[in-house]
Amino acid sequence: MRLRGRKGIRETIERQNDLVVMNPAEWKGRWAERFGNDKPIHVELGMGKGKFISEMSLVHPERNFIGVDMYDELIRRASDKARAAAGREDGGAPDNLALALFNIEHIEDVFAEGELRRIYLNFSDPWPKKKHARRRLTHAGFVEKYVRLLDSLGEIHFKTDSRSLFEFSLNSFADMNIRLRRISLDLHKDGPAPDNVMTEYEGKFFDAGMPIYRLEALIGQDALAEHRQSLDKEEEQ
Amino acid sequence: MRLRGRKGIRETIERQNDLVVMNPAEWKGRWAERFGNDKPIHVELGMGKGKFISEMSLVHPERNFIGVDMYDELIRRASDKARAAAGREDGGAPDNLALALFNIEHIEDVFAEGELRRIYLNFSDPWPKKKHARRRLTHAGFVEKYVRLLDSLGEIHFKTDSRSLFEFSLNSFADMNIRLRRISLDLHKDGPAPDNVMTEYEGKFFDAGMPIYRLEALIGQDALAEHRQSLDKEEEQ
Ligand SMILES: C[S@@+](CC[C@H](N)C(=O)[O-])C[C@H]1O[C@@H](n2cnc3c(N)ncnc32)[C@H](O)[C@@H]1O
Ligand SMILES: C[S@@+](CC[C@H](N)C(=O)[O-])C[C@H]1O[C@@H](n2cnc3c(N)ncnc32)[C@H](O)[C@@H]1O
Repeated sequence: MRLRGRKGIRETIERQNDLVVMNPAEWKGRWAERFGNDKPIHVELGMGKGKFISEMSLVHPERNFIGVDMYDELIRRASDKARAAAGREDGGAPDNLALALFNIEHIEDVFAEGELRRIYLNFSDPWPKKKHARRRLTHAGFVEKYVRLLDSLGEIHFKTDSRSLFEFSLNSFADMNIRLRRISLDLHKDGPAPDNVMTEYEGKFFDAGMPIYRLEALIGQDALAEHRQSLDKEEEQ
Repeated sequence: MRLRGRKGIRETIERQNDLVVMNPAEWKGRWAERFGNDKPIHVELGMGKGKFISEMSLVHPERNFIGVDMYDELIRRASDKARAAAGREDGGAPDNLALALFNIEHIEDVFAEGELRRIYLNFSDPWPKKKHARRRLTHAGFVEKYVRLLDSLGEIHFKTDSRSLFEFSLNSFADMNIRLRRISLDLHKDGPAPDNVMTEYEGKFFDAGMPIYRLEALIGQDALAEHRQSLDKEEEQ
């Protein structure tokens, strides 16, 4: 086996420009152009090895997906996974998927206002020390950015194994007066939750019998209005 | 030891009308009159043996407290506890406490609109079966009543050991678009939480090392406005 150094990894993924985006800021405001269509764009921030985003891209051909990570080694692994999952003879990638290498702190350099339909935060680093609270991806500093980037149907879907991060996030969304729904403190208590694609981390915690926390945050005005309507309908019944 | 039957219990507490209110509906809209002053009224719904409410009445002489339960045996025990806690030579009860015997389903017969400042729900029965959801004290059917009874500074403070009841309650408040704060998924993780009076149930779960869930719901307009101001101040710092 040939060991690839960091330089080798970079060269490998640079060649995969059908799937991998090394300079994502170049596409700010023009992601629809890159995908060649106007399907809504769903982004996973911190995708790791990419199991979730590549499975989602197959389950939902009616959406475009972008997996984000800041490590080129993870982009490479996610790229391999996405091609394998697509199962095409030519080793091609799904048309509706891109893998973008960048630091989430700079997310506003990569996407324009209202360019995104949904943001997934899956098993984000918990940063348990109070002095690192600003690094948590559900800190108001980050969420304010997400709010600007999401469109009128925009939502944030968040899953984690970390009780302390979930607690922090509930308070963070509450303090920002953001409406939540489908809050779960043990997502898989009756067996694997339906309509849920497990991430790599999630699979491990699920196998270990640990509870998974989940919430959805309604950001866009139309997402909120639709939710209110569905609640009214439930009540009528 | 003489065993007292149900009739004996009833007779015992009926004689304690300095503290026990057997026909609380008679005081609807006139609780300030009963206490002889206009201090804000805090009510615990389902007080059990009354540890929490009697300790609170001593810690907060600037408030009036009403402990509610539907079992006369629990009213009797709470009465004994309150007198013992007050520690008065004459065996008298705290001036700012009343114990009311009634079923919470009829709460609107007992209190008038805006008559209450705060409602405590401590370790309410979880009613885990879905078909009993309407009996949970944080079900919209109950919360709508609390909202009518609370004043412009009104809040609901809720603690429980039950993950499933807490999950249900988070969603119930979210669906009613009620603002939450101080959400905790493990209230005593760094040792007994400060400024917290433990209930009987809470003490047992704490001793067993089990997590306690807590939230505060802001109901009144002025409670909400004060909260927003305090968040703005925090941010300025
Ligand atoms: C704990 S892993 C979770 C991976 C995957 N979402 C899952 O659930 O299996 C967190 C991932 O977020 C990435 N990450 C953390 N902070 C980031 C940042 N500021 N920018 C980009 N990626 C980040 C890490 O590199 C890591 O791959
Ligand atoms: C689990 S105990 C908790 C007692 C106490 N709050 C504590 O934390 O230790 C619940 C209490 O609520 C009372 N309760 C339940 N449903 C009630 C209702 N509909 N009306 C009045 N009391 C009720 C029960 O009698 C019981 O004492």
